[in-house]
Amino acid sequence: MIRAAIISTGDELTCGRTTDTNAGFIADRLFELGIDVVAMLTVGDHPERLRWVWSEALRLAQVVISTGGLGPTADDLTTETVATLLARRIVHDEQVAERIREFFRLFNRPMPENNMKQAAFPEGAVIVPNDLGTAPGYRIEVGPADDRRYLVVLPGVPREMQPMLTATVLPWLAELSGAARVGHRTFQTFGISESRLDEVIAGIPGEGRWSFRANFPEVSARVVVRGGDVEARLEDFGREVYARLGQYIYGEGDTSMERVVGELLTARKLTVGFGESCTGGLVTHRITNVPGCSAYYRGAVNAYANDVKERVLGVPAAILAAHGAVSEEVAGAMAEGARRVLGTDIAVGVTGIAGPDGGTAEKPVGTVCFGLAAADGPTVTRRYQLWGNREWVKLLSSQIALDWVRRHVLGAPLLDLGRNRAEPASVKTESVEPD
Amino acid sequence: MIRAAIISTGDELTCGRTTDTNAGFIADRLFELGIDVVAMLTVGDHPERLRWVWSEALRLAQVVISTGGLGPTADDLTTETVATLLARRIVHDEQVAERIREFFRLFNRPMPENNMKQAAFPEGAVIVPNDLGTAPGYRIEVGPADDRRYLVVLPGVPREMQPMLTATVLPWLAELSGAARVGHRTFQTFGISESRLDEVIAGIPGEGRWSFRANFPEVSARVVVRGGDVEARLEDFGREVYARLGQYIYGEGDTSMERVVGELLTARKLTVGFGESCTGGLVTHRITNVPGCSAYYRGAVNAYANDVKERVLGVPAAILAAHGAVSEEVAGAMAEGARRVLGTDIAVGVTGIAGPDGGTAEKPVGTVCFGLAAADGPTVTRRYQLWGNREWVKLLSSQIALDWVRRHVLGAPLLDLGRNRAEPASVKTESVEPD
Repeated sequence: MIRAAIISTGDELTCGRTTDTNAGFIADRLFELGIDVVAMLTVGDHPERLRWVWSEALRLAQVVISTGGLGPTADDLTTETVATLLARRIVHDEQVAERIREFFRLFNRPMPENNMKQAAFPEGAVIVPNDLGTAPGYRIEVGPADDRRYLVVLPGVPREMQPMLTATVLPWLAELSGAARVGHRTFQTFGISESRLDEVIAGIPGEGRWSFRANFPEVSARVVVRGGDVEARLEDFGREVYARLGQYIYGEGDTSMERVVGELLTARKLTVGFGESCTGGLVTHRITNVPGCSAYYRGAVNAYANDVKERVLGVPAAILAAHGAVSEEVAGAMAEGARRVLGTDIAVGVTGIAGPDGGTAEKPVGTVCFGLAAADGPTVTRRYQLWGNREWVKLLSSQIALDWVRRHVLGAPLLDLGRNRAEPASVKTESVEPD
Repeated sequence: MIRAAIISTGDELTCGRTTDTNAGFIADRLFELGIDVVAMLTVGDHPERLRWVWSEALRLAQVVISTGGLGPTADDLTTETVATLLARRIVHDEQVAERIREFFRLFNRPMPENNMKQAAFPEGAVIVPNDLGTAPGYRIEVGPADDRRYLVVLPGVPREMQPMLTATVLPWLAELSGAARVGHRTFQTFGISESRLDEVIAGIPGEGRWSFRANFPEVSARVVVRGGDVEARLEDFGREVYARLGQYIYGEGDTSMERVVGELLTARKLTVGFGESCTGGLVTHRITNVPGCSAYYRGAVNAYANDVKERVLGVPAAILAAHGAVSEEVAGAMAEGARRVLGTDIAVGVTGIAGPDGGTAEKPVGTVCFGLAAADGPTVTRRYQLWGNREWVKLLSSQIALDWVRRHVLGAPLLDLGRNRAEPASVKTESVEPD
């Protein structure tokens, strides 16, 4: 198994002003190639700290991937550090230089002379192209054949680094590590806890390296297989996972609940609308994060005050008075009102108590009611007892509203949170909190 | 200046399944105490990697703060690693053990025997209490007086770690580092770019360590001062900053635009509503993230489809036909319609093209129009040309809508993005992209 180390460079990281997302992004991709990340190391823009981090990384790992420190200013020291450590000269690359000049010409701006620093590389470097910025990356191989080391140097801006990694570095690494014989598959679930998911998956036969990621309110399960007929083995795993988890799996790979809902509605040519209260617009914010959503999404009423529920959604005052704003009856009336007012095939109503205040003995914080109205059947409603802080209750409620639409379109039963409740992510890691 | 190293432990980090937020959180707080973070180091749950990371951290820094590896299972190795490295025995703490048993009794659950591991500490450890979980942290001092080292061991769950750091570790570190004589102040700005902010602040006299954080679409500026009359010096800085930046500063310290807007509306006893289109519910999602918002927030109409703008908000079909859905005229009519339908003192309408599709030569992606209707004056409208991807256009639009409410309530002029446009955060760090 190839060992890798990841270096992140920049004072903005060690000062805590910026959270490093690069190292985690790279580690995630290396895991999928079956590469073992020995350490993730962050230092500021100091020559001696950079020397330390690079020499330790090269001692610990065969592949070292670094981000940051490639800018044009004096405190961008990565290339100098690498060249010094490897005892290589720094050479000017005229082709890269011309591309940088072109970049500035394109924007009709004078090029500061120090930008030419970004066209200088340690001798023997292979350029990793950067389509989105002026600083290309590079890789260098050093050492004898039986103790080879590989250095990969990338810029720190995530939106430049990520495509460079994906387009150039990962395919090269896949070859290097023999990862042609490694495959993976990621199942996105909602409504089942991480521990329950772990239990279910532990019962699945076959050799694979499983890992779980709780990203509240979802949990994803990824399996990596190595060797043999990779495709067939992944297919076997998939069959078992779906047989055991069914509708708790909402999708696979790089997707989201709102995207899956959008794909289903598009395929069935259905439109959707919402009557939100406690979620406050989060459901439709998520719906409208998906480009092209206007094909199926028409609008929503965010009826926070009771008289807006009455006036705009037409919820009868008598129902509000008899059952209270947080009730299945009002959720159902909100769904029906939203469907009528917005003119959609399906509408979902959500009303609840997000907290921290407003809870009662009968309806504690986290009480949330849902209703779904559709052309093809009677309105359905349900009350759930959710948990967590205001942010969690809103997020979990928005997820349930979207999952209701998904399950309705698929003709699947309503979500049952009773037995398989999705625990808050942060409870899991360390404390083994009694639940 | 005291040097610190931060260690994060856990396979979930080196596998890329979880993004480490602990190290950045701690680095941010240490910066405020004037402590220099030499390195942030992450390793998985492997004995030899843990030994390496701890011995290097203690070589590089006087203070080492670690998170993770304190759970009850066999792969939680932090305490063993520290004890071995310092050649100290591991001792049982009966008081902590009793608290853990109590914790399980409280939840009426049997305690797994391995939880007693969390009551075992290297000899000489001073407990750092954990009010929210079973694993307390601890600190240990080692070495001669002229070369003292301080180890701080905390659990990895952020919602446990953070209050432990704040309540127990930071006050102790403040004393250790003489930080009683260090003070800081953070100004939250919107509508001005980081480079422009840097320029303005560079002109301010006085000795302070300034740092900037671009958290799109906002930029915060923090000044840390050390020595002398800390309070008076911070007050001088504040006076200068407000004199130069005025309404571009919307708040100070740990706040948000939506919270500031809520405080202003509460103070003036005003209510607000929205007619959203391209923001899709994000404005009201943010408004309702603030507990107690029902005092001033009544509701919103998310009028995505044109006929919802007509039917629910009463935007005249003639205006839609004459000017198109993305126009100042429609934004104004949406604001007026929202104010009427929702019965609020103030309402804001937002309509635009978030992309990636839907742009034209005349109205490219990023064209967003705003309108504000209020009881005390005529409806105002404006068109902005925003930038970035769909997510950014939505986020920036939601920020402008909230900022309009803030400026209206304060009687301040409308936001001018023309000269001081807030650049996308990711453009800044490395590439010096021509702009």
